[in-house]
Amino acid sequence: MPDIAAVKAALASQRIETPSWGYGNSGTRFKVFAQAGVPRTAQEKLDDAAKVHEFTGIAPKVALHIPWDTVDDYAALAAYAKERGVELGTVNSNTFQDDDYKFGSVCHPDPKVRRKAVGHLLDCVDIMDATGSRDLKLWLADGTNYPGQDDIVARQDRLAESLAAVYERLGDDQRLLLEYKLFEPAFYTTDVPDWGTSYMQCMKLGERAQVVVDTGHHAPGTNIEFIVALLLREGKLGGFDFNSRFYADDDLMVGSADPFQLFRILHEVAGNGGFDAETNVAFMLDQCHNIEAKIPAVIRSVMNVQEATAKALLVDRDALAAAQREGDVLTANAVLMDAYNTDVRPLLRELREEQGLNPDPVAAYHASGWQERIVAERVGGEQAGWGA
Amino acid sequence: MPDIAAVKAALASQRIETPSWGYGNSGTRFKVFAQAGVPRTAQEKLDDAAKVHEFTGIAPKVALHIPWDTVDDYAALAAYAKERGVELGTVNSNTFQDDDYKFGSVCHPDPKVRRKAVGHLLDCVDIMDATGSRDLKLWLADGTNYPGQDDIVARQDRLAESLAAVYERLGDDQRLLLEYKLFEPAFYTTDVPDWGTSYMQCMKLGERAQVVVDTGHHAPGTNIEFIVALLLREGKLGGFDFNSRFYADDDLMVGSADPFQLFRILHEVAGNGGFDAETNVAFMLDQCHNIEAKIPAVIRSVMNVQEATAKALLVDRDALAAAQREGDVLTANAVLMDAYNTDVRPLLRELREEQGLNPDPVAAYHASGWQERIVAERVGGEQAGWGA
Amino acid sequence: MPDIAAVKAALASQRIETPSWGYGNSGTRFKVFAQAGVPRTAQEKLDDAAKVHEFTGIAPKVALHIPWDTVDDYAALAAYAKERGVELGTVNSNTFQDDDYKFGSVCHPDPKVRRKAVGHLLDCVDIMDATGSRDLKLWLADGTNYPGQDDIVARQDRLAESLAAVYERLGDDQRLLLEYKLFEPAFYTTDVPDWGTSYMQCMKLGERAQVVVDTGHHAPGTNIEFIVALLLREGKLGGFDFNSRFYADDDLMVGSADPFQLFRILHEVAGNGGFDAETNVAFMLDQCHNIEAKIPAVIRSVMNVQEATAKALLVDRDALAAAQREGDVLTANAVLMDAYNTDVRPLLRELREEQGLNPDPVAAYHASGWQERIVAERVGGEQAGWGA
Amino acid sequence: MPDIAAVKAALASQRIETPSWGYGNSGTRFKVFAQAGVPRTAQEKLDDAAKVHEFTGIAPKVALHIPWDTVDDYAALAAYAKERGVELGTVNSNTFQDDDYKFGSVCHPDPKVRRKAVGHLLDCVDIMDATGSRDLKLWLADGTNYPGQDDIVARQDRLAESLAAVYERLGDDQRLLLEYKLFEPAFYTTDVPDWGTSYMQCMKLGERAQVVVDTGHHAPGTNIEFIVALLLREGKLGGFDFNSRFYADDDLMVGSADPFQLFRILHEVAGNGGFDAETNVAFMLDQCHNIEAKIPAVIRSVMNVQEATAKALLVDRDALAAAQREGDVLTANAVLMDAYNTDVRPLLRELREEQGLNPDPVAAYHASGWQERIVAERVGGEQAGWGA
Repeated sequence: MPDIAAVKAALASQRIETPSWGYGNSGTRFKVFAQAGVPRTAQEKLDDAAKVHEFTGIAPKVALHIPWDTVDDYAALAAYAKERGVELGTVNSNTFQDDDYKFGSVCHPDPKVRRKAVGHLLDCVDIMDATGSRDLKLWLADGTNYPGQDDIVARQDRLAESLAAVYERLGDDQRLLLEYKLFEPAFYTTDVPDWGTSYMQCMKLGERAQVVVDTGHHAPGTNIEFIVALLLREGKLGGFDFNSRFYADDDLMVGSADPFQLFRILHEVAGNGGFDAETNVAFMLDQCHNIEAKIPAVIRSVMNVQEATAKALLVDRDALAAAQREGDVLTANAVLMDAYNTDVRPLLRELREEQGLNPDPVAAYHASGWQERIVAERVGGEQAGWGA
Repeated sequence: MPDIAAVKAALASQRIETPSWGYGNSGTRFKVFAQAGVPRTAQEKLDDAAKVHEFTGIAPKVALHIPWDTVDDYAALAAYAKERGVELGTVNSNTFQDDDYKFGSVCHPDPKVRRKAVGHLLDCVDIMDATGSRDLKLWLADGTNYPGQDDIVARQDRLAESLAAVYERLGDDQRLLLEYKLFEPAFYTTDVPDWGTSYMQCMKLGERAQVVVDTGHHAPGTNIEFIVALLLREGKLGGFDFNSRFYADDDLMVGSADPFQLFRILHEVAGNGGFDAETNVAFMLDQCHNIEAKIPAVIRSVMNVQEATAKALLVDRDALAAAQREGDVLTANAVLMDAYNTDVRPLLRELREEQGLNPDPVAAYHASGWQERIVAERVGGEQAGWGA
Repeated sequence: MPDIAAVKAALASQRIETPSWGYGNSGTRFKVFAQAGVPRTAQEKLDDAAKVHEFTGIAPKVALHIPWDTVDDYAALAAYAKERGVELGTVNSNTFQDDDYKFGSVCHPDPKVRRKAVGHLLDCVDIMDATGSRDLKLWLADGTNYPGQDDIVARQDRLAESLAAVYERLGDDQRLLLEYKLFEPAFYTTDVPDWGTSYMQCMKLGERAQVVVDTGHHAPGTNIEFIVALLLREGKLGGFDFNSRFYADDDLMVGSADPFQLFRILHEVAGNGGFDAETNVAFMLDQCHNIEAKIPAVIRSVMNVQEATAKALLVDRDALAAAQREGDVLTANAVLMDAYNTDVRPLLRELREEQGLNPDPVAAYHASGWQERIVAERVGGEQAGWGA
Repeated sequence: MPDIAAVKAALASQRIETPSWGYGNSGTRFKVFAQAGVPRTAQEKLDDAAKVHEFTGIAPKVALHIPWDTVDDYAALAAYAKERGVELGTVNSNTFQDDDYKFGSVCHPDPKVRRKAVGHLLDCVDIMDATGSRDLKLWLADGTNYPGQDDIVARQDRLAESLAAVYERLGDDQRLLLEYKLFEPAFYTTDVPDWGTSYMQCMKLGERAQVVVDTGHHAPGTNIEFIVALLLREGKLGGFDFNSRFYADDDLMVGSADPFQLFRILHEVAGNGGFDAETNVAFMLDQCHNIEAKIPAVIRSVMNVQEATAKALLVDRDALAAAQREGDVLTANAVLMDAYNTDVRPLLRELREEQGLNPDPVAAYHASGWQERIVAERVGGEQAGWGA
C-alpha cells in the first residue's frame, strides 16, 4: 500500500498552472455572456489567479497569452505577479486572430504571412526571456476547410521550416511545446491534428521540442492515457492542457465530464515518472468558463486535478503489478478501481490544514469577499475576453 | 429505367431555400474573417439571394432570421423580394443571443424568461402573417453545460408548454418546424438533441408541428437517411437544413464532405414521396461561408443539392426493387451506385439551357459583375453577421 | 440530506437480473477463449446465477435466452431455479443464428422467413407462460449492410406488422420490451437503431410495449441519461441492459468504462421514479466476460450497479433543486459530484452485514470453493456459449 | 489537364492484391452464414483469386494468411499460383487464435508466450523466403480489455523487443509492415492503436519497417488521407488494407461506405508519388463478404479502387496548384470535385477492351460459369473460414 506521508508530500509539491484567459469572458460562436467583475487587464487577471493560489496552495503559475496579455514591461508584470505570490508561466502565442491568418499562419501558402507568424513567435520568446518563462506553447489554428483547398504535404513542409526557425531561437532552458487538435477552427484538416504529427515534428526539431496533450482535442474514442504513457516512455510529454468535454472540444472544467478518464491519465503519469520534477511535465488548465462563475470554476478545476492525482497516488502499484503478472484481470482492475473509488477529500482537507489553508477552498473564496470586491471595483474599461 | 423527361421535369420544379445569414459574415468562436461587399441590410441580403436564383433557377425562396433581418415593414420587404424575383420563406427565430438566455429560453427555469422567449416566437408568427411565410423554424440553443445544472425532465415539461403556446397561435396553413441538435452551444445536454425528442414533442403538438433534419446535427455514425425515411413514413418530415461537416457541426457547403450521404438522403426522399408538392418538405440551406466567397458558395451549394437530386431521380427503382426481392445484395447496391456514379452535370447543363439559363451558374455569376459591384458599392455601414 | 435508513431500504429492495449467457463462453469474431468450469446446461447456468445472488443478495432473477436455454419442461426449470433461491426472469428471443435470417428475421423481405421469426417469438411467449416471466425482450439483428440492399420503409412496415402479431399474443401482465442498437451485426442500417425508432414502434403497439436501453448501443457522444429521463417521463422505459464500452458495443462489465455515466443514468432513474416498484423498470445485465473469470465478473458488475445506485440515492435533491432554481451552475454540479465522490462501499458493507451477507461478495465467492468445484465437476459435455 | 494516355498507362500498371481469406466464409460474432462453393483449400482460394485477376486484369497478387493457408510446400503453392496467372503476395501472420494468446502475443506478460509468437512470425519469414513474398504484414490483436489489466509501457517495451527480433531476420528485400487498429478484439487499449504508435515503432526498427493503413481502423472523424500524405512524406507508407465501414471496423467492400473518402486518399497517393513503382506501396484489400457473393464482391472492390484511382489521376493538378496559390478556396475545391464527379466508367471499359478484357468484369464473371462450377464441385470437405 502507498505510504500516506509520501502521497501527501507528492500532493504538496504538485503545481497546476492556470490560464490568464480563463479569468476573462469567453463564449461560443453564438454568444459571449459577460460576467460582472471580470478583469480588464493582465494585472487584474494575475490578481484573480493569485486568489486561486491563495486558496488552493498549488496554483502558483499563470500562463500568459500574447497578445491578450500584452504589456509594455514584462519584467514589471513578473514583479507584479511575484508580489501577489504567483509567477508568470507558459507563454501562449496567437496566430489566429489577425485577418492575414485566414488561410493559416506558419503553414500559410504566402511566405509573407509565414514570416509574420514566425515573427510573432520569436517575439513570444523575447517575452519569455523577460518573464523567465520556460515554455512556449504553440496551438496553431492552421488547417483547411475543404478538400483541395491547400496541399497537405506542402503545409507540413512549411510547418517544419517555421518551427525550426523558432526552435533555433530558444534558450538552453526553454522549450517549444507543440499542441495538437483534431479540428476547429479548421474543419477539413488541421495541420497538427494528432499526437503522431506533433511527435514527428518535435522529433526532428530536437530535445527541447515536446508534445502537449490537450485533453479535449481528440477524436471520439481515443484512449488519451495510452498517448500519455507513450509520450512519457519517449521523453516527449511536455505538458497537459486540462479541460473536459462530452462531445467535441468545449473547454468544460477538467474532470467534470469523465473523472475516471482524468484518473486514468494521472495514473499513467504517476506510474511513468511524470510527477518527478526532472521530467518537467507542465500541468496546465486550458478552459473557458462560459456560464459558470470564473474564479470558483478555476478553483474547482484545480481541486479536480488534485483529487484525481491523490487517487492515482493511492494505487497500490505492488498489488497491481502482481495481479498483472498473474493475468488476473479482475483483481488488477479492482486494485485500480479501489483507488478510484476512495474518497480522497478528507485526505486533501487534512493536507490543506497542515499547510495552513482552509480545508474548503471554494467556501474560503466565497467567504473572502473577493468576488464582491471585484464586482464593485471593476467597473468601466473593457473586460478581458478572447478578443480583448 | 427512369424517364429522362420526367427526371428533368422533377428537377425543374425543385425549390431550394437559401438563408439570409449565409450572405453575411460568419466565423468560429476564434475569429470572424470579414469579406468585402457583404450585405448590410435585409434588403441587400435579398439582392444577393436574387442573384443566386437568377443563375440557378431553383432558389426563389429566402429564409429570414429574426432579429437579424428585422425591418419596420415586412410587407414592404416581401414586395422588395418579389420585385427581385424571389420571395420570403421560412422565419427563423433567435432565442440565444440575449443575456437573459444564459440558461435557456423556452426551457429556462425562470418563467419570466420563458415568457420573453415565447413572446419572441409569437412575434415571429406575426411576421409570418405579414410576409406570407408558411413555416416557423425553431432551433433552440437551450440546454445545460454540466451534469446537475438543471432538471432534464422539468426542462422538457417547460419545452412542451412553451411550444404549445406557439402552436396555438399558428394559422391553419402555418407550421412549426422543430430542429434538433446534438450539442453546441450547450455542452452536456441540449433540450432537443435528436429526432426522437423532436418527434415526440411534435406528435403531442399536432399535425402542423414537424421535424427539421439539419444534416450537421447528429452524433458520429448516425444514419441520417434512415431518419429521413422514418419521418417521411410518419408524415413528420417538415424539412431539411442542408450543410455538411467532417467532425462536429461546422456548416460547410452541403455535399462537400460526404456527397454520397447527400445522395442517399435524397434517394430516400425520392423513394418516399418527399419531392411531391403535397408532402411540403422544405429544402433549405443552413450554412456559413467563413473563408470562401459567399454568393458563389451558395450557388455551389444549391448545385450540389441539385446534382444529388438528379442522381437520386436516376435510380432505376424497378431494378432496385427486383434485386431487393431476390436478396441480391450486390446487384441492389450496384443499381444504386450506378445512379450515383453517373455524371449528371451534362443533364443539368441541358436543363438550364432549356430554361434559358447559363449552363454554368458559377461562371455566369463571376461574369455578371455583381461581385465587383457590391464590393465597390457596399462601403460603410455595418456589415451583416451573426450578431448584426 | 437523504435519510440513510431510507437509502438503505431502497438499496435492500433493489433487484438486478443477470443473464444466463453471461455464465457461458463468449468471445469476439476472432476467437472464443474457453474457460474451465463453464456451465453446460441451463440448469448449471442457474446454479452459477444462484451463487451470484447468494453473495450479493440483490440478483434473484435470471434472464433466459431461447434457444440457448431451451429445455423440455420450463415449469421444471422454474422449480429448479426456485430451489436454488432464484427465479426465471426475462425471456430473450434469438432470431439471428439461423441460416434463414441472413437478410433479417421479422423484417425479412420474404414473408415465409417473417412467419418463422414471429413463430419463434410466439413460442417465447408460451415459455413465458410456463416460467411466469413478465417480459419478452426483443433484440433484433435485422438490418442491412449496404445502401440499396433493402427498402428502409418497407422493412419498418414489416417490423410493425410482426411486432403487432406478437403484442396481440401477450397476456395482460406481460410486456414486450424492444431494444435498439446502432449497428452490428448489420453495418449500414439496423431496423431499430435508436430510442426514437423503438419508442415510435412501441407507441403504436400499446402500453405494454416499452423501450429497453442497452447502455452499449449508442452512437459516440450520445447522452444516455437524457434518453432515460425522457422515457421515464413518457412511461416508456421498460428496462436496462447494462454493460459498458470504450468504443463500439463490446459488453464490458457495467461501470468499468465510465462509472460517472452509470451514476448519472441512475441519478435520472432515482429522480424520476424509476426505482419505484410500480414503474416496473427491469434492471438487467447484458454482458460477456470474454477474458475475465465469469462468476466473479458478474458479482463485480452487480456491485457496480449497486454502488452507483447508492451514490444516486445519496444526492441531496433539495439542495440540488435549490441551486438549479438559482441558476448556480457550480453549486448544482457540486451537489451532484458530492454524492458521486462519496465512497459508498462502507455503507454497502454495513448493509450486507445487516442482511446476514458477507460484506465482501467477491472474497466470499472465492472462499466458497464453488469455482474449484465447478472446474472439477464440469468436465465433458459441451460448454455453453453463444452458439451452444 | 491530365493526359488521358498517361492516365490509362498508370491505370494499366496498377496492382491490387486480394486476400485469400476474402474468398472464404466469414461473419460476425453472432453468426457465420456459409455460402455454397466456398474454397476448402489454399489452392481453391488461389483458383478464385485467379478469376478475379482474369476479369479485372489488375489483381495478380494474392495475400496469404498463416496458418489459414498453411501448406506443406510453399514453393509448390507458388508454382500453382503461377500456373493460374497469379502470384503469392504478402504474408499475414496470426497471433490471435491460439489459447495462449488470451492476454496478447508479442506483448504478452509471459516471455514464453512472446517467444511462441515471435517464433510464428519467424516461421512466416521462412514462408516468405519460399514464396518469394516481399512483405510480412503484422496485425496484432494484442491489447487489454480493462484499465489496470496490464502495464501500457511494459507492453510497448515487449512489442519493441519482439519486433526487433523479427526485423533482424528479414532479408534485404523484405519488409515488416505494421498495421494499427483502434480497437477490437481488445476493448480498452490495443498495443498499436494509431499511426503514431506504428510510426514510432517502425522508426526505431529501421527503413524496412513501414506502416500499413487499414482504412477501417480509425476513430470516428479521423482524416485518413492526412495520415497517408504524412506517411508518404516520411517514406513510411508500406501499404493499404482497403475496406470500408459506416460505424466501427466492419470490413465492407472498399468504396461502398464513403467513395469520396477513397478518392481523397488516392488523390494524396497520386500527388505524393505513391503510385510510383519505386515507392513500393502495397495496395491490398482486407475485407470480409459476410452476406454478399464473395468473388463478385472482390471484383466489385477491385473496380471501386480502380475507379477512384482513375478519378484521382484525372485531377488537374496544375489548376489545383494555381487555385491553392491564389487562396481561391472554391476553385481549388471545384477542381478536385470536377475529377470526382467525372464518370470514369467509360474510360475503364475502353481500357479493358484495349487490354483484351471484357469491359464489364462482373458480368463477365457471371457469364463464365465459374460460380456454378464451384458450387457443383466444391462439395464435402471443410469450407475455408476464419478458423479453418
